[in-house]
Formats: sequence, C-alpha cells, structure tokens
Amino acid sequence: MEVKVMKNILGENDKFAEENRKIFAEKNILVMNLMGSPGSGKTSLLEKILQKISSEFKTAVIEGDLFTAKDAQRIENLSVEVVQINTSGGCHLDAQMIKRAAESLNLDELNFLIIENVGNLVCPAEFDLGENFKTAVLSITEGDDKPLKYPLIFKESEVVILNKIDLIPFTNFNLKNAREDLTTIHPNIKIFETSCTKGDGMESFCEFLRTRLISKEIAL
Amino acid sequence: MEVKVMKNILGENDKFAEENRKIFAEKNILVMNLMGSPGSGKTSLLEKILQKISSEFKTAVIEGDLFTAKDAQRIENLSVEVVQINTSGGCHLDAQMIKRAAESLNLDELNFLIIENVGNLVCPAEFDLGENFKTAVLSITEGDDKPLKYPLIFKESEVVILNKIDLIPFTNFNLKNAREDLTTIHPNIKIFETSCTKGDGMESFCEFLRTRLISKEIAL
Repeated sequence: MEVKVMKNILGENDKFAEENRKIFAEKNILVMNLMGSPGSGKTSLLEKILQKISSEFKTAVIEGDLFTAKDAQRIENLSVEVVQINTSGGCHLDAQMIKRAAESLNLDELNFLIIENVGNLVCPAEFDLGENFKTAVLSITEGDDKPLKYPLIFKESEVVILNKIDLIPFTNFNLKNAREDLTTIHPNIKIFETSCTKGDGMESFCEFLRTRLISKEIAL
Repeated sequence: MEVKVMKNILGENDKFAEENRKIFAEKNILVMNLMGSPGSGKTSLLEKILQKISSEFKTAVIEGDLFTAKDAQRIENLSVEVVQINTSGGCHLDAQMIKRAAESLNLDELNFLIIENVGNLVCPAEFDLGENFKTAVLSITEGDDKPLKYPLIFKESEVVILNKIDLIPFTNFNLKNAREDLTTIHPNIKIFETSCTKGDGMESFCEFLRTRLISKEIAL
C-alpha cells in the first residue's frame, strides 16, 4: 500500500522532471543537482564554485531548505541569481518545485543552473529533478562507512565529492576504503577530494564543470 | 492529496507507537530514540554509553540502517543484545518495525532499550516509535546553522548532544549561537557537549541517563 503510493508520487514527479529536462535542453542550460547530508559542505562548495565559474558562465542557483533563507543569502552575497525553495519540513526537492522556481529565472540568459538539494543522504536521491547529472557530497567527518550504508545516492550520482579532507588527520577516515566502496557501488563514478577551507581540489572539480559546460557549447 | 496520504501513514504509525509504549511501560523499560545526520556519531556515542551503562542496567539496542549490519556488529562486539533493522532504502524507522524487532528481545529482563534511528536529520523526527524520549545528535562539523534549518528534530527531542566538540578549533562552529538557537526552538531542551574520541561529556550524559533509569525504579 505504501509502495503503491510512493510509485504514484514518483510517477507524477517523473512527468515534471521530463518537462524540466526538455526546457533546460531547449535553452542549452547545464543543470547539476547537488546532494549530501546536512553540514557536508554543499553551500561552502557552491560558494567556491561560483567564485571560479560564474564570471565565465552565466550561472544561477536554486536553494532547497526545509526552513530559512540562510543559504540563499550566502549565494546572493556573491551577486549570483538565486531562488530559495522552502519545503516547510519536506525532506527533498521534487521536480514540480524546480519547475516553479525555474519560472522566476531568466532562462534565456543562463548557461549553468545548480540546484542545492535539502540536506539529506537518503530521500533526495529518489527524485529526478530534470537535471543533467547529480553530484553527491560526502564529508570525511561523516565516516568511511557511509557509501555502503547509503548506496542509492552514490549509485545515482555521476560525481562524488569527498569534502573536508583537511580534517582527515583528526578522524579515522580511510580514503582507500571509501574509494573502493564507492567504485564497487558505481564503477564509473568520478571522485574528487576537496577542502573548502584550504581550497584543495576546487580547481580540479571546476575544470570538470568547464568541460561539461563547453561540451554543451554554451561558453559565453 | 500528498498530505492526506502522509496523515494516514502517520495515523497508522501512531497506533503501533501507542501499543509499543504500553508494552514498554508494563515491562518498566526506559526507551530512548537516538537520531541524527549520517556520521554525526550516533554509534560511537552508543558504544561509549554502553561501556558505562550496560553493567549497571540491562540494556539492549535496536539498530536502524538502510543497508548493512555494520553498526549492529559494533554493538555486538560489546556483548550487548542487538537487533538490526534494515529499511532497504527507507529513510526512517517506524513504530511497526520497532514492534517486530522488540518481539525478538527478552523484554522481561530489560531495563533500557536504545533505538538508533536511520541517519537523517529530517524524516525520523516525524515518527513516534513509542519511546520515552528522543535524543538528537548534532556534530559540530555539521555547522551551527543546522538547528534553525532543521527545527523539527530539535523541537521533538528532550535532549540534544553536540558531538565532536574536539574538532571545534578546526571549524567555524559558534557554540553560543548554536545553544541560543536550540533554546529558541525548544526552551527546555537539555544540551550536552561530547567528544567520543576524547571522552569529554560522556560521564555527564550517562549521569542523566542513570537519573532517568532510576526514576523509573528499574535499577538492578
């Protein structure tokens, strides 16, 4: 009974996701769905990405949070267009929310849209938003057992960012084990190691984004 | 429409939660529902608690995870009775799962039951399991903005544990702000500061648990 309800909700979601994907393709906009646990560093990564990318490619952000506009304010401080979605307690973004939020953006001018999902390593992975690819953020302070415990999000993501690598010396995180488990779950997953506070790995990840953006022939 | 479905599921859950609560009260078992993000340190806290408490009070653990029995194995290593629930991707434990898991425990001999919920700062807070009280774990590496962004879990919890305080020097976590926000959301919330790696704060939290256990007159 519960499963049936879930399928109906997902069926409805997939219809809106396909509509979004069609619109984004027509406008030649690359869309990344950024997911991860609360406090994994999604907004800090976003700030670093925008500092490097937004002068090269016209970029906008959709911020998903249960409550508050704290993250949207951080993005706005970088003079980047941002729309805040508050889910009022909801545990994930869905495609209909993205459709409404995108309507308030000037899509004709846009090259790159980043969607920061609600902080949650479980539910967001189940909902297609019409994005081109998903990126999962796992901070090393969460522990190297997380890929096997939460496999779906890593199966669904083209990219995983291992963030806060500057804190490895203060934890028992085993980078080799984490990489092996991620590759077992998703053989072709691209793994980046970053530190937002130290700046490590950001250029490498932004180079990956540039390649994706240029391959869509949407460079300014 | 979605809201209606949600209410039906919650109504069904509340029925099982009341049944659980009645059984636990009859058997004079104190039940704590331990919640928090992936990697906030729930299992590590549990290990420390069990080392201090399980020789004084007969304790058992129900472990909730999407997949794997990694956490249950850690608890079993401490010679504590443990039941693993795998939700197969489900984002929270519900009262019916607890009812089934509890049936495999010897409740007549038990004083204290700890339920470690699925790692998720959102969904578990919505589901009453029939526990006596909820404890939310927030690791300081998640950031001091989390109480206002995820208020429900802190509203529902009698206790919050600020874990990994040994990492404060390496982050921008503001303890004063976090405490103020938690108290705004839930004026009577009890706040403990802990470090599982250094042992800070564990005795203070265990003393709180002892008081709760003794006030139920279930000391051995």
